[in-house]
Amino acid sequence: MQLGSIEAGGTKFVCAVGDGDLKVEQQVQFPTTTPEETFAKTIEFFKQFPEITAISISSFGPIEIRKSAPKYGYITDTPKKNWSNVDFLGVMKAALNVPIYWTTDVNGSAFGEYQHAKNNGESLDSLVYYTIGTGVGAGVVLNGEFLGDLGHPEMGHVRLKRHPNDLEFAGICPFHGDCLEGLVSGPTFEARLGRKGETVAENDPVWDILAYYIAQAALQVTLMIRPGKIVFGGGVTSETLLQRVREQFSSLMNDYLAVGDLDQYIVMPEIANNGSATVGNFALAKNLA
Amino acid sequence: MQLGSIEAGGTKFVCAVGDGDLKVEQQVQFPTTTPEETFAKTIEFFKQFPEITAISISSFGPIEIRKSAPKYGYITDTPKKNWSNVDFLGVMKAALNVPIYWTTDVNGSAFGEYQHAKNNGESLDSLVYYTIGTGVGAGVVLNGEFLGDLGHPEMGHVRLKRHPNDLEFAGICPFHGDCLEGLVSGPTFEARLGRKGETVAENDPVWDILAYYIAQAALQVTLMIRPGKIVFGGGVTSETLLQRVREQFSSLMNDYLAVGDLDQYIVMPEIANNGSATVGNFALAKNLA
Repeated sequence: MQLGSIEAGGTKFVCAVGDGDLKVEQQVQFPTTTPEETFAKTIEFFKQFPEITAISISSFGPIEIRKSAPKYGYITDTPKKNWSNVDFLGVMKAALNVPIYWTTDVNGSAFGEYQHAKNNGESLDSLVYYTIGTGVGAGVVLNGEFLGDLGHPEMGHVRLKRHPNDLEFAGICPFHGDCLEGLVSGPTFEARLGRKGETVAENDPVWDILAYYIAQAALQVTLMIRPGKIVFGGGVTSETLLQRVREQFSSLMNDYLAVGDLDQYIVMPEIANNGSATVGNFALAKNLA
Repeated sequence: MQLGSIEAGGTKFVCAVGDGDLKVEQQVQFPTTTPEETFAKTIEFFKQFPEITAISISSFGPIEIRKSAPKYGYITDTPKKNWSNVDFLGVMKAALNVPIYWTTDVNGSAFGEYQHAKNNGESLDSLVYYTIGTGVGAGVVLNGEFLGDLGHPEMGHVRLKRHPNDLEFAGICPFHGDCLEGLVSGPTFEARLGRKGETVAENDPVWDILAYYIAQAALQVTLMIRPGKIVFGGGVTSETLLQRVREQFSSLMNDYLAVGDLDQYIVMPEIANNGSATVGNFALAKNLA
């Protein structure tokens, strides 16, 4: 069995072909330029593999995921130039004559981590995957299905209790100011400190502020969804940060609900090399095959 | 077909028998005293109806709803005296020889409103039901199933961005201080103003503060779950309050996601006389029958 994965990010596309064990056989990546050019490279890659049974696309968004909607398969109102109102799924279906699954980038990653955990024998029925990078988003798998009826979640835009040492910071979300994304995404380092996150020391107090907000996101999702595991990926996340998140989570929860061992509950992605979405895509494509 | 409903609240029990159209045929209510006494009255009521096919219990909590857990069917660590660690479902199963469904009070109400909407021809795949009364809780129906893997949601205990005119109020949740329940439940009127909510005028600015927090709860659940409808019940809720909630929701959302007509999206219970849980129980019992 040969399966295809398209991880469509706002910065780059990662296309891969893998086998029924969800192992990568061949992979290519290129920058996300215009839809025309980027789609052409994607199609060119997959045309090399006429044996492919099915493909899954995990795309940046917002995207239309309701099958009943006229624009199902489209990237909708994205701030990314040239990419609004683009029929991504339609172009791929027309060019590549195989069944194609369509979901968000974070759903793809969530599914990859969920499948990986299950394949490792973990007893797990649900999982949330947050990415904290240029933006903040999350995907939720519940018993093998994605959460989202009227559309996919937009968990990056929840409001939070502000940290007492951060009240002066207005947040950077153009829609909401101090929502989660406006308070913890990568560009907040420049906005708060005037320099890139990579240059901020591990003991800088800004990490406690970020951890306080990220812990509230974990707390919200715990209280609202009661998932089996919460994975944090994306460029801002590190094990050092997550250790602070666990401490703040524990303090905010105040023993109200048991979630098991926090080191197993709030975790970094377990699939190496940012491969969560690719593995997730293979698994989603396999379900179509 | 004859179906049974037990709505087990912390203050009173409402037991009812209804038909396959989810209509109440007979109903009784009594105060929640000791488990022994309250269960005896419950059993006595249902013993009058030997033709009952199935019963559903919607109980105050926290309760154990994981079927695999040793204490499945128990009320667990409740602050209500005498009711911790009580095998509610086990006692009922032993006394009444019919299939019995077991869920939370808010799940029962959510299911009632969901079923009612579907029976009225609404196209609806998911619904959230919040109660705002002595406490705050919520239940979620997704495609006919309840949300909650490791246990039922506890949405009353999320943290929120504080209202600028309410920063002095510490909140009253014994676990979390200023979580949603600690900021908007019925007893917050006495804590903030020194008098009962019933005596507070409709134009008192405290309602704007409550609406700001309740709107954030609606926003969180929208961004995280994308439900088809959000119902607010409980003694604190009124249409006047919900009108303010809709305004604040709209302002917080800032056109980020479309949820349709807000008057149809954020609503009071549509089942009259606090009957949501009873209708929900009948529908859940019917699924067992």
